[in-house]
Amino acid sequence: MEALHVYDTTLRDGAQQEGLNLSVSDKLAIAGLLDDLGVDFIEGGWPGANPKDTEFFERARTELDLRHATLAAFGATRRAGGVAAQDALVQALVDSEASVVCLVAKSHTGHVERALRTTLGENLEMVRDTVSHLVGRGRRVFVDCEHFFDGWHLDRDYALSVVRTAHEAGAEVVVLCDTNGGMLPHQVGEVVADVLASTGARVGAHCHNDTGCAAANSVAAVRAGATHVQGTVNGYGERTGNADLVTVAANLQFKLGLHAMDPDALRRAMHIAHAISEVTNVPAYSRQPYVGASAFAHKAGLHASALKVDPDLYQHMDPALVGNGMRTLVSDMAGRASIELKAREAGLDLSDRPEVVASVLAEVKELELRGWTFDAADATVELMLREALDPGCTDYFEVESWRVITDSSGEGDATSEATVKLRADGARLIATGEGNGPVNALDHALREALTRAYPEIEKIELIDFKVRILDASHGTDAVTRVLIETSDGETSWDTIGVAGSILAASWRALTDGIVHGLLRQGVPRR
Amino acid sequence: MEALHVYDTTLRDGAQQEGLNLSVSDKLAIAGLLDDLGVDFIEGGWPGANPKDTEFFERARTELDLRHATLAAFGATRRAGGVAAQDALVQALVDSEASVVCLVAKSHTGHVERALRTTLGENLEMVRDTVSHLVGRGRRVFVDCEHFFDGWHLDRDYALSVVRTAHEAGAEVVVLCDTNGGMLPHQVGEVVADVLASTGARVGAHCHNDTGCAAANSVAAVRAGATHVQGTVNGYGERTGNADLVTVAANLQFKLGLHAMDPDALRRAMHIAHAISEVTNVPAYSRQPYVGASAFAHKAGLHASALKVDPDLYQHMDPALVGNGMRTLVSDMAGRASIELKAREAGLDLSDRPEVVASVLAEVKELELRGWTFDAADATVELMLREALDPGCTDYFEVESWRVITDSSGEGDATSEATVKLRADGARLIATGEGNGPVNALDHALREALTRAYPEIEKIELIDFKVRILDASHGTDAVTRVLIETSDGETSWDTIGVAGSILAASWRALTDGIVHGLLRQGVPRR
Repeated sequence: MEALHVYDTTLRDGAQQEGLNLSVSDKLAIAGLLDDLGVDFIEGGWPGANPKDTEFFERARTELDLRHATLAAFGATRRAGGVAAQDALVQALVDSEASVVCLVAKSHTGHVERALRTTLGENLEMVRDTVSHLVGRGRRVFVDCEHFFDGWHLDRDYALSVVRTAHEAGAEVVVLCDTNGGMLPHQVGEVVADVLASTGARVGAHCHNDTGCAAANSVAAVRAGATHVQGTVNGYGERTGNADLVTVAANLQFKLGLHAMDPDALRRAMHIAHAISEVTNVPAYSRQPYVGASAFAHKAGLHASALKVDPDLYQHMDPALVGNGMRTLVSDMAGRASIELKAREAGLDLSDRPEVVASVLAEVKELELRGWTFDAADATVELMLREALDPGCTDYFEVESWRVITDSSGEGDATSEATVKLRADGARLIATGEGNGPVNALDHALREALTRAYPEIEKIELIDFKVRILDASHGTDAVTRVLIETSDGETSWDTIGVAGSILAASWRALTDGIVHGLLRQGVPRR
Repeated sequence: MEALHVYDTTLRDGAQQEGLNLSVSDKLAIAGLLDDLGVDFIEGGWPGANPKDTEFFERARTELDLRHATLAAFGATRRAGGVAAQDALVQALVDSEASVVCLVAKSHTGHVERALRTTLGENLEMVRDTVSHLVGRGRRVFVDCEHFFDGWHLDRDYALSVVRTAHEAGAEVVVLCDTNGGMLPHQVGEVVADVLASTGARVGAHCHNDTGCAAANSVAAVRAGATHVQGTVNGYGERTGNADLVTVAANLQFKLGLHAMDPDALRRAMHIAHAISEVTNVPAYSRQPYVGASAFAHKAGLHASALKVDPDLYQHMDPALVGNGMRTLVSDMAGRASIELKAREAGLDLSDRPEVVASVLAEVKELELRGWTFDAADATVELMLREALDPGCTDYFEVESWRVITDSSGEGDATSEATVKLRADGARLIATGEGNGPVNALDHALREALTRAYPEIEKIELIDFKVRILDASHGTDAVTRVLIETSDGETSWDTIGVAGSILAASWRALTDGIVHGLLRQGVPRR
């Protein structure tokens, strides 16, 4: 079997995702990360069709230093009735200087006739002419057969004739695309096997997730003989997205024992997937297979005691292989074992401190009765553990008082102003902050006051804020739970606050977030 | 083939998801929605193991009126060395009065010996004893064989003996669980086929999404002969989640032509999935198959004209079958229809007022772009419609200004004081209210000020309050969406506010809630 191609189309098909807009610099940054991930091909865009993509290929020549991956340019077969050698868009592919060109071609008779509005014969000629022209210019050519699976079901002979034409004209790989995403794995396997048996072509697969089966369909294609898989990082793409390339590669590597990517590169997968989501500004999905923040997180108390003894019983693989780690969530189902595991994750040894485990467990249970939840607030649990082990170690500052005033004239938006009074470093620290909303104002005032004693907090930033009203039957009299995610630019941590007032709950989560950040940096108390 | 069982475990296994915490009232609300969705079984929790779940089954008897679904209680086989008839946890299952009991049993020799710490023989005896005891008490018993697929690979004979034991003791279905989620579809198909061929049991499947294949694995199980599938709404669950039950049912129904759910109920799938995400407060995932907001959204561009001519060329199915819509093309028509429907629900006749429908639709679309959502805020839409039909009819009072001050001394809770200035009944109405939190204080001040002009508001009460931060990547700078439910003691209605400040958003929803209540009572403007 030929070495498997792992072909990334994050920068082209992935960028079709709603709300995802990449600048040329973003694309260059992502391309560098994709190379680190160990993909074989990076489809950079459609030069000629899109000025941004033309610029990407120009800048890539000098600004991108790929160590493993090969850059590919995406384009289409030439215009109906024309000649490839005189087609401006085909010429733009040559001008991009990409050594690989991936051409989209129609293979579904309905699309040829109703969308492309040409004849079935001319479409074949467009494929032949464009592929052979580009091969003649020294390019490696891959052909993406759009709507292939639907086309095969509608008119198998015609779909196969497109594959044969591309192959005979010199295409290195013919990629079968489930463009509308409606296939299931057994259907993909059947079609791939038929194409392999009926044509001499090397076959690839390009799947979308409309049936929730993009990863399974890609694996089914490879099991049926495909040796080229296309996908995107984080499964970005139009509608439900493309096949998630890390999920596909990890399945092939760890579940089927094939070589998809360099094992050392795969160990960076979680880091790279998250770094790419920072560039795209699409929040990472915590339940994402392999690389999601929750992908190896365990909640059930039932499991936690056994987990401690034998982690392999409760995880399908070693999470370190994809750069992830096992986490246990402390919750009302959890017990002693969860607390001990949580401590171990934080690098704290509680093996000879059963009284600390017991007191933290009692505190967790007591707070949970009042609406606290710790499974999404690791940092708060860690602060409780550290404080129990070394009383006073979290006392970075003393809170004297705080106040927020929000006002609005009429029906428009409101403005908030917060004043906080703290004591630290032997002084009273008083500061005022303004904000869009009251929590934003509190955050600004708190930061402003603390900077004088702890300039280290400059790196620490609030990045997410969630509110939940508990026991809704009492309306605004109810208890409010606030979860805050804080970051130092490298990692992030979650804290919780629960109080009758949303602002008191926010204050608790905000201050814990900052204290955790200071402890993490090893900042001494002043 | 037996009629397929669609078995929902959102309330039990789904609730294992990180960050997901359901009150008993939340669980009852979700159970009602699951019944509307057309699932056959609703697993309510583990009575006896968890006081919240015991309470759920108690309250379900009087508060839950299921039309289609059957409630199931989850539990475990009896303690090793004991007797089912004297096991307190087994008795709690009987006491729950659920007619179906789903028992988790070990079927993996490593788990029996290292996690359960008993003998292989005693484990079989625990299965036999517990199943036959519950069958003897008139219960339908399903057995979830935990870690079955891994167990089958390790020791096939033992895994099969657990299935045979459960079946012979009277279990109606033996459910093969991919507890750690590491399987691929071809492996699931192979094991299901083997169990069917080797035992006489009816087989079900319970899949997790760790390889991104939960939906495909569930479909593979059914293709291999399983007639019972377990999953959760929105794919909630520990780690990467469980199989998404709507995706699985839609694949079975629309891709394999089986009957999974009532077609009319499936047409509510998108609405129900989103309503459940409002209860869980887990943001809906826009790329979710079938029901995601983006699932049938096409980025305008390459195929826009073809899309208009022939939508079937570009979508894998009619999105209306799952209550979704193709965004670029039919959202206008869908929006128009839903506005007419909402008007009809409110007793307003718009049949000869197309300009009112058009203007409200334009306003709704403009607001939706800014983060408003009207699915859960019927009363706000009704106010917009009434105002468009009869301008000025909602002007019960004019807002001059409002202000809230929240302060706290030290680490404790906070107190809030709000002052509102309104004009109505020819006078300036100024009042101050105190509260636990700032929204509570605003609500008290608003009510106090309005009582002088509208004593009728005494009956109107805020009963629920929900907050969601939109576009989480900006932290507290993000836009806040507030949903408020208001009641007059007989019925209740929902209003929405969206603003940069949580208090401005709350103010909008609060005032709309009161105006809707006054209109509803037919109170004249003063």
